[in-house]
Amino acid sequence: MTDITQVWETLAWPDGGQIIYLILDGMGGLPAADGGTELQVAHTPNLDRLARQASCGLLELVGPGITPGSGPGHLALFGYDPLRYQIGRGVLSALGIGFELQPGDVAARANFATLDEAGRVCDRRAGRIDSELNRTLCDKIRQQVSLDFDGEIFFETVSQHRAVLVLRGDHLGGQLQDTDPQMTGRRPLAPVAQDEASERTGRLVQQFLSQVEALLADSSPANGVLLRGFERYQPLPSLTERFQLRGLCIADYPMYRGVSRLIGMEVVLPPGGLAQRFQVLEDAFSDQYDFYFLHVKQSDSSGEDSNFQRKVAVIEQVDQLLPKLLALEPAVLVVAADHATPAVMGRHSWHPVPVMLASELAQADTVQRFNELDCLQGALGLRPGVHIMGLALAHAGRLQKFGA
Amino acid sequence: MTDITQVWETLAWPDGGQIIYLILDGMGGLPAADGGTELQVAHTPNLDRLARQASCGLLELVGPGITPGSGPGHLALFGYDPLRYQIGRGVLSALGIGFELQPGDVAARANFATLDEAGRVCDRRAGRIDSELNRTLCDKIRQQVSLDFDGEIFFETVSQHRAVLVLRGDHLGGQLQDTDPQMTGRRPLAPVAQDEASERTGRLVQQFLSQVEALLADSSPANGVLLRGFERYQPLPSLTERFQLRGLCIADYPMYRGVSRLIGMEVVLPPGGLAQRFQVLEDAFSDQYDFYFLHVKQSDSSGEDSNFQRKVAVIEQVDQLLPKLLALEPAVLVVAADHATPAVMGRHSWHPVPVMLASELAQADTVQRFNELDCLQGALGLRPGVHIMGLALAHAGRLQKFGA
Repeated sequence: MTDITQVWETLAWPDGGQIIYLILDGMGGLPAADGGTELQVAHTPNLDRLARQASCGLLELVGPGITPGSGPGHLALFGYDPLRYQIGRGVLSALGIGFELQPGDVAARANFATLDEAGRVCDRRAGRIDSELNRTLCDKIRQQVSLDFDGEIFFETVSQHRAVLVLRGDHLGGQLQDTDPQMTGRRPLAPVAQDEASERTGRLVQQFLSQVEALLADSSPANGVLLRGFERYQPLPSLTERFQLRGLCIADYPMYRGVSRLIGMEVVLPPGGLAQRFQVLEDAFSDQYDFYFLHVKQSDSSGEDSNFQRKVAVIEQVDQLLPKLLALEPAVLVVAADHATPAVMGRHSWHPVPVMLASELAQADTVQRFNELDCLQGALGLRPGVHIMGLALAHAGRLQKFGA
Repeated sequence: MTDITQVWETLAWPDGGQIIYLILDGMGGLPAADGGTELQVAHTPNLDRLARQASCGLLELVGPGITPGSGPGHLALFGYDPLRYQIGRGVLSALGIGFELQPGDVAARANFATLDEAGRVCDRRAGRIDSELNRTLCDKIRQQVSLDFDGEIFFETVSQHRAVLVLRGDHLGGQLQDTDPQMTGRRPLAPVAQDEASERTGRLVQQFLSQVEALLADSSPANGVLLRGFERYQPLPSLTERFQLRGLCIADYPMYRGVSRLIGMEVVLPPGGLAQRFQVLEDAFSDQYDFYFLHVKQSDSSGEDSNFQRKVAVIEQVDQLLPKLLALEPAVLVVAADHATPAVMGRHSWHPVPVMLASELAQADTVQRFNELDCLQGALGLRPGVHIMGLALAHAGRLQKFGA
């Protein structure tokens, strides 16, 4: 079957209007005990007014039953089939702490762990040590490990027991087996190379692990490091290469900034809260960019905290700011989410999320309110998440005719 | 594009709730002259009450315009893309009569036929002889044919002129050409091997056919046997291997039992009628199984008999029994069909069939009644049949997150 996103590539041209993506992370929800979903309960006069003019619908971001992580959910929205463009956990972890990966870097996710006297894993997470101890140990490792290697090595705290290892140098390979045995009572595995190009890297990682083991021998409870998800970082084909879009990302969380950089967007770090982020977009709105991605994290984090009311409040706050975007009169404004995070579940879910596409050329429907239930009646129907980029490009006048 | 069912495989884990599939074979229909479809006409207070809580929708089992046989329709429901997992007619015929195929068996569909004096086919179905004569001829063939073969040979009645041939032994191959010339006036073809591994099997089948021809020389009208759809039987990857599900099939018709065995489900033969089948499920419901498939055949057979009223009555009978399943409180209850069998057509059809998925995490919609028309408004939308397994797994908490 042909990948439709590749057809857009052949049809995209650099002319056309500007596209704004307003992404409320984890916006989709489920009803609380006493009534509607977060969106149904929220008072959203501006979103609802826009829904009456826009084409509405629902997006299934990755596929039926699939709960998207933040990376795949956003890639889908940007027109990158997340089953085709898979980002490994090592790279995602590095992006998630704002580490600026360079092409050719090899990254792996790291856990501090507890080993017994025979060197067997007895706690894969070292009792979930706090981030402070983690930072102390990372400093120690960075200062004292010295590899036989004409490159750089980074070992950075993520949080609690989690860290990330990055090797930077020429001719590194990322095809290495996890050293994490995934269960207790076993010794860590060797970072065995799975192709020739990764053999030297495997030896380097082994050398790193041996030095770390000696260095942490008297450290308790974190006296070992387990590695998994090795991957060599290669940026994806950019939004410009694929869709002739010069993109700007306005997001404060490292993960979203990292994914945006991965596809060649420029990234600004907005100061302060939500209102400032809308202001940054207003200030940047110019003929310098074609595509603006404004990310709202707090809808997701309040969902993850099972805080229904806070999620409602975030949605209402966004609603109040919406007129600022409308005043810019972009050719296309898309309001969507990268996945649902129902507060009643307290985590990401697989449920389709509401979407609307506002444009002078948008097909009308009968949707009166912007929520999961009303959007079922929308002109966009229920679709794979990756479709929304093609629709946005078309409505912005950025796709040529297919065939004569 | 990646097969989404394979993504579920990588995400499935053995934890999670129990799933019940209530499959009303051929449930979908079309309106009779004086009004609604079978489901619209039926009085179904329990199905309708469930529809108000569940996510409803429509399934296109195999693809647009495709009328599914029972095998592909069920494979789709079980999460096996029926275009990828194709079961040959020989194997399906053997499964359909409850023949317990073993891995490596070679099966073919057989027709008794009438040959003229020159050995040319003059009736490919021997005047549709009755099943009694068929059984007599099969007995004779089983008793008197003796092959130069260190294995077993089975020749079993299906019905009328139809039978099935099974060879069991070491190193058999299933790549043989049909001997059925598919038209009258021609001689049966030789079972030519299409690969090396099937050459010895081809000679054995030729020997079998020569002996049968001699044996039936004076039999009228069935004096010949035509073979087609040779296939070497290999079980498919099981539900356990693919989705970490231990499955139980409760069905009385051999075909459904056979397809269930093919994907590694345990199969019980329920005594008596419909009510007993629900009772068997109630008795078996335990932490021994994760997935329960309860099959109702009579909705399909009354559709095939063009008996609209009987099909309505079957649906109403199921409706009365539904509370027994609800009382078990499975994490997920799916009510669906493997294809439509509109009574006004008297055969399987390609029309999408209603489906509902009940679960505490099911997204609400406005559907008030469970039928073809109302389900158009449902939260599941119109989807490929294979999607329902992924949604069931997700709602049962059996799929991990995709990506970080």
